[in-house]
Amino acid sequence: MMVVSVKRQYLRTLILLAIFVAYLLGGSAIFHAIESKDEEENINKTKVFTQELQQQFNLSDEEFAYLVTTIRSNPYIGKMDRKWNFTQALFFSTTVVTTIGYGVLAPSTEAGKGICIIYALFGIPITILLYQSVGDIINAFFAYLIRSFKKTMGKVPRVRNLELGIFDGLLTMTFFSGGAATFAFLESWSYLDGFYYCFITLSTIGFGDYVALQKHNHHMNHSAYLGLCIIFIMLGLAVVSSGLNLFIRFTMEITTTDQTKKEIDKTALKMITLLTMTNIIIHACICYNLPP
Amino acid sequence: MMVVSVKRQYLRTLILLAIFVAYLLGGSAIFHAIESKDEEENINKTKVFTQELQQQFNLSDEEFAYLVTTIRSNPYIGKMDRKWNFTQALFFSTTVVTTIGYGVLAPSTEAGKGICIIYALFGIPITILLYQSVGDIINAFFAYLIRSFKKTMGKVPRVRNLELGIFDGLLTMTFFSGGAATFAFLESWSYLDGFYYCFITLSTIGFGDYVALQKHNHHMNHSAYLGLCIIFIMLGLAVVSSGLNLFIRFTMEITTTDQTKKEIDKTALKMITLLTMTNIIIHACICYNLPP
Ligand SMILES: [K+]
Ligand SMILES: [K+]
Repeated sequence: MMVVSVKRQYLRTLILLAIFVAYLLGGSAIFHAIESKDEEENINKTKVFTQELQQQFNLSDEEFAYLVTTIRSNPYIGKMDRKWNFTQALFFSTTVVTTIGYGVLAPSTEAGKGICIIYALFGIPITILLYQSVGDIINAFFAYLIRSFKKTMGKVPRVRNLELGIFDGLLTMTFFSGGAATFAFLESWSYLDGFYYCFITLSTIGFGDYVALQKHNHHMNHSAYLGLCIIFIMLGLAVVSSGLNLFIRFTMEITTTDQTKKEIDKTALKMITLLTMTNIIIHACICYNLPP
Repeated sequence: MMVVSVKRQYLRTLILLAIFVAYLLGGSAIFHAIESKDEEENINKTKVFTQELQQQFNLSDEEFAYLVTTIRSNPYIGKMDRKWNFTQALFFSTTVVTTIGYGVLAPSTEAGKGICIIYALFGIPITILLYQSVGDIINAFFAYLIRSFKKTMGKVPRVRNLELGIFDGLLTMTFFSGGAATFAFLESWSYLDGFYYCFITLSTIGFGDYVALQKHNHHMNHSAYLGLCIIFIMLGLAVVSSGLNLFIRFTMEITTTDQTKKEIDKTALKMITLLTMTNIIIHACICYNLPP
């Protein structure tokens, strides 16, 4: 029995590895094709603009190249505003413990780097425990709603994973749509960019190409906006994790034991996948067909 | 019973929230203090340098400010090398599915952004399943080693969480130290910066302030180095997750059921914490006392 289980584990890992490598290569081909074409166009456009700029300021190629390199290598040139005020430090700390790590702010001192490592080491587990705890409360609340509804309908008040998955899916959709619209409004982005920001943030990828709270905002004062951002991130991670917990419970149970297999509602995962696909299609329509 | 359990869940969440808020505020105060002082010094130093630069190229304040803003807002100015080649796209795809998201490369086209969202949606679960699977194999191998050793010593071949935790801790330490030294050598960084890069990468924070594979490397050819980076990231995540799984199993069991509580070796967590602390102290000594 043990040997079979180990063999199965190896086979499973090999299959996953094959899928992973194929997925990476496929993705790279697509991103390379799309983005390099756009990059080429931008570089060509910029070449003309660069020449005009050089003529305007009477700079030789060498002088201009030296200026560009110098300005790029020293982020303090031309920066009037202090970046490391308390508000931004609070936003920075949030991006560390959530592992979003936009990188618009990062420690540059040796002490800062060392403290950042220790800070993350204890902060990440605390944060995961917190938003998973909030996620559990959300699921408990949904279970309570479903049970109450079934009772009033005279049915057996049993909550199935499928029903919980649908509620989680709907909440996630609402959260992403609402977040996208809110950030698009507050940061003057298109709806696609707002949605992209929400996704890149709540998936904790955090590229740092779109980051809230970076410009002097006209709509809200800074502290209120910071509070909104932190609450959005933490609640969003709770919402995503409450949905993800269903998925993890599902995969953990099929990989570790066969005993509890019967308990799992396989249709739950199918429905969640279906909901996700519907979500993608709806948003694709909003983002690409309607004017931003 | 149910009411007590719900109450306990609320209390637990409230305590976690209090710890989280205190931890955020404390961290922000420290980072603000350290980094804003350094920032102030750098800005003052740069002011003098900026004036020299302006005089050298005979530029007025307005002209220089315009040049800096223009160069900063258009990343294509002065860029000769294409960023989106296949190698970099492959590295980019790796940072998406692992949620590291350095952000040195990010999609700038609408199509690229949309595809990136869908790509991450399916890629992240695949990647988690893969590195957790590899992590399970690592733990199974350690369990086999411990069992074999105990058999030859004539003891009962039972593997305790404590022993597994020590092995995971030692492997993680070795991996971080080895990675730090390797990247410090290949990228000409100090050991602290190499360690900081490994930590920020394998915690999936991924600020993007230190990123491997960004300069034309003298030590290795590009494809071999890319392969090394991807293998380091995936193996590193497997190593970290194999240790983290022990921690998650521990916290899940104390929060959900009381039945299996007895099975858990509480000393395991203590030992892992102790190992982590020792690790931090050793590295702090290496990074701050010895010359880089
Ligand atoms: K990240
Ligand atoms: K990041």
